[in-house]
Parts: sequence; structure tokens; C-alpha cells
Amino acid sequence: MKTPILSDYLLQHFDKQSPGPSNQQLYRLLRKAILDRVLQVDARLPSSRDLARELATCRNTVLYAYDQLRAEGYIEGRSGSGTFVTDTAPQEGALNQTPMSHAPLGAQVAPILSRRGQELVAHAGAAAQQWGPFVPGVPDVVQFPHQTWSRIQKKVWRRPSPDSLTYAQGGGYLPLRVALADYLKVARCIDCSPEQVVITTGIHQSIDLCMRLLSDPGDLAWVEDPCYWGTRNLLRASGLNIRPVPVDAEGMCPGPADFAAVPRFIFLTPSHQYPLGMVMSLARRRLLLEYASRNDCWIIEDDYDSEFRYNGRPLAPLQGLDSAERVIYLGTFSKTLYPGLRVGYLVLPRALVRSFVTGVNELHRAGTIQTQATLAEFITEGFFTSHIRRMRTTYARRLGLLQQLINKRFDPSVVQTIGSDAGLHLVLQLPDYCNDQELAAKATHAGVAVRPLSLYYHDATRSAQGLLLGYACVHESQIAPAFEVLARHIEHELWNKPAPLSRNDAEYRASRNKAVL
Amino acid sequence: MKTPILSDYLLQHFDKQSPGPSNQQLYRLLRKAILDRVLQVDARLPSSRDLARELATCRNTVLYAYDQLRAEGYIEGRSGSGTFVTDTAPQEGALNQTPMSHAPLGAQVAPILSRRGQELVAHAGAAAQQWGPFVPGVPDVVQFPHQTWSRIQKKVWRRPSPDSLTYAQGGGYLPLRVALADYLKVARCIDCSPEQVVITTGIHQSIDLCMRLLSDPGDLAWVEDPCYWGTRNLLRASGLNIRPVPVDAEGMCPGPADFAAVPRFIFLTPSHQYPLGMVMSLARRRLLLEYASRNDCWIIEDDYDSEFRYNGRPLAPLQGLDSAERVIYLGTFSKTLYPGLRVGYLVLPRALVRSFVTGVNELHRAGTIQTQATLAEFITEGFFTSHIRRMRTTYARRLGLLQQLINKRFDPSVVQTIGSDAGLHLVLQLPDYCNDQELAAKATHAGVAVRPLSLYYHDATRSAQGLLLGYACVHESQIAPAFEVLARHIEHELWNKPAPLSRNDAEYRASRNKAVL
Repeated sequence: MKTPILSDYLLQHFDKQSPGPSNQQLYRLLRKAILDRVLQVDARLPSSRDLARELATCRNTVLYAYDQLRAEGYIEGRSGSGTFVTDTAPQEGALNQTPMSHAPLGAQVAPILSRRGQELVAHAGAAAQQWGPFVPGVPDVVQFPHQTWSRIQKKVWRRPSPDSLTYAQGGGYLPLRVALADYLKVARCIDCSPEQVVITTGIHQSIDLCMRLLSDPGDLAWVEDPCYWGTRNLLRASGLNIRPVPVDAEGMCPGPADFAAVPRFIFLTPSHQYPLGMVMSLARRRLLLEYASRNDCWIIEDDYDSEFRYNGRPLAPLQGLDSAERVIYLGTFSKTLYPGLRVGYLVLPRALVRSFVTGVNELHRAGTIQTQATLAEFITEGFFTSHIRRMRTTYARRLGLLQQLINKRFDPSVVQTIGSDAGLHLVLQLPDYCNDQELAAKATHAGVAVRPLSLYYHDATRSAQGLLLGYACVHESQIAPAFEVLARHIEHELWNKPAPLSRNDAEYRASRNKAVL
Repeated sequence: MKTPILSDYLLQHFDKQSPGPSNQQLYRLLRKAILDRVLQVDARLPSSRDLARELATCRNTVLYAYDQLRAEGYIEGRSGSGTFVTDTAPQEGALNQTPMSHAPLGAQVAPILSRRGQELVAHAGAAAQQWGPFVPGVPDVVQFPHQTWSRIQKKVWRRPSPDSLTYAQGGGYLPLRVALADYLKVARCIDCSPEQVVITTGIHQSIDLCMRLLSDPGDLAWVEDPCYWGTRNLLRASGLNIRPVPVDAEGMCPGPADFAAVPRFIFLTPSHQYPLGMVMSLARRRLLLEYASRNDCWIIEDDYDSEFRYNGRPLAPLQGLDSAERVIYLGTFSKTLYPGLRVGYLVLPRALVRSFVTGVNELHRAGTIQTQATLAEFITEGFFTSHIRRMRTTYARRLGLLQQLINKRFDPSVVQTIGSDAGLHLVLQLPDYCNDQELAAKATHAGVAVRPLSLYYHDATRSAQGLLLGYACVHESQIAPAFEVLARHIEHELWNKPAPLSRNDAEYRASRNKAVL
């Protein structure tokens, strides 16, 4: 069988000027010719010498391409008679037995994502922007002592042991777990052994492990309403049913209807409710602990930013009250050091430690021991606590500045500040007739990346309206100009919305006038 | 109400010699006294002055403890009359309405893990040991050019931008994605844009993303039998049904019964079947691609170690043949650089890119840009390909040494070596009457950490018997002594098992005699 068509095809497509090695180019062209049936099964290929001459290229180029095609099964030598295209096309026989899942005419094309995939993407909560005024939940990473970190890191890399470079055992680098147990004892009143501390890549991985090891699809989880969007997404992705439980001034506030359906998990942010900022009262803590211990629920305590409390000392976590070992404590370095580090940890009841160490290895495979060794030394050398101390002062100053600007600009009966004694953000609560999502989108577009409070509610259409303002990552000099931009957008929203029918007009006008000042 | 009992309690437990600040110690003691009802609700606390005197400590210690207890709600000042224990005990009223889930007498205590958690732990596959002869799947991390890495890392840390320290956008550091797209084009014949490359923490996270975004619980996945234990565990954890499909010399070999039930996913290791080592034939590749494209299945191509092929060039991945965009390609740096790095990547069909970038952020939150920046420069400076080249020579030498020892020691009709032209390990296949799990456990105990082949089969009781020997991580000088230890264990297993009834005695004796030599 002759192949004049091949010569035409190759002369047309082979381009010696194109970037990349020409032997690979030729291999690809021939492969495509075979797959597209330009070269039929059993077609005979020209000799390498002939083809090289025809293409005005060197013979090695052709030999390379032929060798690769032969190795991959596209062509085969037949003794004495040359090189031929192998028959590798799928046999219809095998495929005809298969059911055809193509949708009938007129039916909808199947969506590309699965149901849970679609749900995940539809509820996506991560902000497009992660730096700048007033991105909430982000610390000032510019202040991170990167020179100190780099120095320690260099030392850790001087003579790495094989064990610190290969897959890790799970649970994490022991000296880091020891350093954390010591830190947690002094800073957070948590009594735990280093073995109870299991290192993860952050709050998300910690929650994921709890879901996969301690729950089955269909299990119930209580979350605070509002709460962190990530928690809800992880629960959904693991097939859990979510019961949003409202919060009041004392934190999560379950009613009789809530108590009646015993959940597998109770997700709490007792030290600093996310995003509203209240501290859970002792009475509520004891009630929920008692309930969890009687009903074999797990309390997941997300203690994401309690190092930053500006009035008085940090409050002890729920974990310290838990004599029944029903509390799983989650910590992270995302707020104290920098989010990109991707190191967090769980403090586990003793009975769970072995399963979680196994779970990390099976689901995620452990590693990053060099990073953990750097972090361990950063902590034991005292840099961690001194960085926290320094940032606490800085953030308090920034909070003060922002609070002043808010107080000067807005009437607190219209625009109320909440959750401003701890953490990295505060919440501006707006009148119900505002649309915080529109407002946040406009402000973000103008360079001020606030987030709408309603995003954090289970049902955004029935939520309070407001904005989360992260002040931690904004330099003092930027606060006033950024706030000016934001304030104008807020005012625009306050003025230009028609007052709802139920609203007291006088009150509204008063607020509006105040907002002008 | 008097509290003489408190004084006794404190005098008994307060220990000024104990390590840690005594103000915290006192706070904890008082807290415990309240929670344990040593101090009843409404009990009045002694004045700070009195208590300090009684405990022979300074007044500030007591003031600290009282302040903290007050802040946390344990005690309260009542104007003019002193400090009292607050009533925070849970009200039985609230709790009595709750159903009691305690198991009735005689019933089994509920297991602490969920069903899927128990299943995960029961099928755990990760080895306890990750370094030493002959741990499979681990590269020689001692040869990793850690000084070069450290130098680049130091440079990257000199002036980190805020964006490289905070949460990342997902998808990964763009220059790394560009470097990978370039590398994949030259080294793996993969045509993709940098946008199609999405950075993950490794094969596990890559698989997890596919499961969560593209499947729902109950969906079917074909896996090769045998296959990597991690794949099976991740599928189970995501609620998928696993159909093990046997492999033959051409790779995965589905029969009519397999074809009849269309899966959502087909998991393949076409370049180097894990763990047996065969290359999937072109005919089989085209058949599976055609089937996947007709039936809207996703093919997950795990190309974990194809950089290391000792005879001839690496073969092009399935991805390059996929005109229907049904192949998701998984890569990792665990075998080429070091496992602890925890960086892998997906090459995605264009239609999936946005959803996967969203998925990484929602499920895992992205970060580690500094690590990715170091890696990007390591690649673009040429260190990556030169390291691979060097290790390919090293591993080929080690493989040669090990193969010689095996050939000298064992009759290939009894102990067969398979999968030895690529990768980081080979498989010694043993007669069916051996028990590879027992054998591997004994060898590991003796310091030679091989893994049993049956571990990789869907049904270990019906699997071939054999051992995986990783030679990549064993220095040349260690190969012979380690093999000597292993060989004795293998011989012991070969000799001491009763020959099965069905076995040809002469053949068995012959094999046994050969094994003695």
C-alpha cells in the first residue's frame, strides 16, 4: 500500500521553523495522521532515509519519531517488508455491547459537575481578593518577620534528614506538637499531651477529617447562624445535613426544637463568634457540653483568632471545660502568622488520636516536615508569642482608628458596629432595607474589598444586612482613605434605597441626615 | 455563705513550687472547684487580700485569677457585698426535653468512629515506615539537591509580596503552572495551557477534588486490580462504588460485564501500571478512550513515576490521545523531588478548570505560594530535569544490582521478577502457597520494609502473592546486605510451607533445590 497522501500531509504540516525539537514535531504529526486515519491501518511507512530526504530533514529526526511510535505501539516492523501502521483502533464488537448513555434528542445535556460538585460551586464563599482594605480574616502579612523565618528555615535545610523529606507518619513533627502543647497550656489554658495535637494543613483539613472519620452521609450538624462559609461547604461536601441554629448575645442559642433532633456535631466559635464576634457565655458553654456528653455529640470548637483580644485577656476555650472528652479543638496559624503557611492543628480527645493520625495518612498523606520544623523552632525561640504581642498592639491601634471614623460618620442607630473587641474584623450592621451583597460588590469594585454579612447566613434572603471590615491587613495610613471610599458607597446605599413601607419615616430621615454629616 | 471548704481545698492543691505561673494555677484550681461544685452556686469568695494571705502568695496572683474568672463568667461582683459564684449550671429543664441516646443496658456501645470512618481505618494502607530498604514508591531524598533548593528558597523569601503569603487564588502560582506546561510539553508530550494545570498538595488531593466535583455517592468507579491502596481509600471515603477490573499484559482489561455497567470514573496508570509495572497497549488505550468518550466517563490518568523509564524513552500519556477531553491527568513531585514537598498537579480538560479552582478554595483553601515560587524557579533554572536525569542513572544502577542478586538467588520459575523496566520498585512474584503479608511483616520487623503484593488487590484473599521492593531509596552499598536478609526470609517462606495438594511435587522440589543454591 502506497502512502503519497502522507507525503502531502507531512509537507503541508511539518515546519522546521517552529519552536521545539523537530523530531517531536514529526512524531506528533505522524501520530495524529494515524489516529485521524490519514494513515490507514496496515499502511506502509516510507523508509526513514526516503522520508528524511522528502522533508529535507536529517535522518535522525525520522528515526527518533519512528522509534517513539514503535515503542508506543503505533507502528510495527514486519520482517523483510518494512514498517506498517498497527491495527489499534477499538473493535466495535467490544463497544457495541455497551449501553449508550447519550441523551436522546431534545433531552437536556447532562451537567458536567455532579450534584455535590454543583452545590459546592454554587455556594462558593471564598473571596476573589485576599489582600487590601478591608479584606476580613487576613492578618498583616507584611509584618510577618520573614527574615527571622528565612534564617531558621535555612538552618533547618542545612542537613535535612531523610525522614524529614519523605512521607511523614501523620500527626506531624513531634517537636512542633510539643511546642504547641506548651503554648496552648500557657496561652489558652488547654491541658493536653503532645500526642493529642495533630497537625493539619488548616481548619479546612481539620474539619474534613472530623467529617470523614466521625460522620456518615445524612448525619446532622448544628452550625451557628451566621457562621463561616467554609464550614457549611465542607459539611455539604461530606453529605451532612446542616441545621442552622441562631446566635444571641450569649452565642449559639438552641431551642427545644433544636434539642429534639440530636446532632452528630455542634460547630462552635465560643471565644469569638464568627462573624458577629460575641463570646459564648459560661452558662451556654456548660449547657452545650452537658448536652453533648449526654447525647454523644461531638463539639467542634473553632478557635481561629482568639489570640487577638483587645480588652482583657483571651478567654479560655470550651475545651478546658470538657471532662467528657467530647470537644475537638481546632487551631490555625493563618491568623497569627500567615495564611499561606497552611498549617493548622487539632487537639483531640485521647480516644480519637490514633484514628485521626491514620485518617490524615490515608486521605491526605502527611509531609511538610521541613516547614513544621521551621515553625517549631520559630515557636520555641519565642518569636511566635512576641509576634502575637506586637500584632495585638498594631491591630488594636488600627481598630481604634477605624472605630473613630465610623463613629464620626454614622449614627449608631442606623449603622451599628458589632464584634469590635477581638479578632481581625468588625461588622457594620446596616438597616434591613439595604442590600449588602450589591453594596459589597460595588465597594470591592472600587478597591475596598468588604464582604456582605448575609453571605454568612444559612439563608441569605432572611439574614441581617451588614458588612465585614477586616482592619488587620490595612496599614494605618490607608485606613482613612479606604474608609472614605467605603463610607460613600454605604451612604449611597442608605439614601438611594426607597424606605420600606413599614419604616418610620422620621427615623429614616434623621438617620439619613446624620449620615450626611 | 461561708467557704471554709475552699480554703482547705486550695491549701491542699495550690503548689507554689509547681512549674508555670501560679496565677494560672490558682485560676485553674478555682475554676475546677466551681465546676466540681466544691464551690456551690452563690458561694461567696474570700477577698483577694484574705485569700492571698491564706495561701501565702501575693495579692496580684489572686487578683489575676479573680479577673479571669470574672471575665469568663464563673464569678460575679455584687455591689457592696463581695464576689460570688455565678449560676451557670445547665438547667435540667432544657436538657430534659432532649431524647436520650444512651444505649439501653445490654446493647452494644456505639463505636466511636462512623461507618465510613471505620472503613477507612480498617483499610488503611500507608506503611508505618517510609524510609530504608526496600520501601516502595520513595525516591532517594538524600540525593535531593537541598543546597540548591535552600538557596532559591532564601531568595524567594528575601522580599515576599503580601499576595504570596496570604490565601491564594486557587489553581496555584502562575509561573509554576507555566513552567509545568512547558515541562509537560517537552517531557510528556502533553499539550496544555498553563490555565489547565491546577496545583494541589499531591495525588490524594487531586483525586479528592475529582471525587467531590464530578461524582455523587453511589457512583461507580473502575480501578485496576491491583492498584494503589490510596485510590481505593479515597473512593470509599467519597461514597463511590468500586469495581476492580483485572489487568493483563496490556493493562486494564475490562470484559463485557464491566462494559455493561458504565462507570463515572476509570482510574488508570497507563505509563506504568501500579504496582505491576506493565505499559498499557495502544489498542487498550484507544478502546478505553473511545468507551469513555461515548459514555461520558472520566478517565483519571495517574502518571506518578513515568519520568523513570530505564529502557528507551518515556511513553506518551493517554492524555495526549484524548481529543474528547475526557482525561484528567495527575502528576506529582513526590517521586521526582521528595514526597514531603506535598506538591502535585492536575491537567484538566478546559471545561473543568474553573470548577476545580473553585473547588480547591472551598474544600482546601489554597496557599503555599512561597513553596510554589521556589519550585517554579527550581524548574525554570533547569535543576528539575537535571535532577531527574541524574536519578534515572542512579536508579537504573540500583535496579541492575538488585536484579543480579535476585537472578543469582532464585529460580525465575519460582520467584518471578516483574515490572522492572521503570519506576522506583519491582515486584517479586511468589508461588501462590506463600503468605506475602506474613512474610512482609517478618522482613519489615527484620529491617527490610517490603510490602505485600496482596495489599494492592481488591480482595487480598484471592490475589497473587508477592513483594514490592523499592530500590530507589537504597544506597548501592546497602542493597546486597538488605537483600540477604530478605532472601533468607523468602527462602524460609518457600521451604517451610507445606506444598499444596494440587502442586506438582517434582516441580516444587526442583524449585526448592534451586532456592537453596
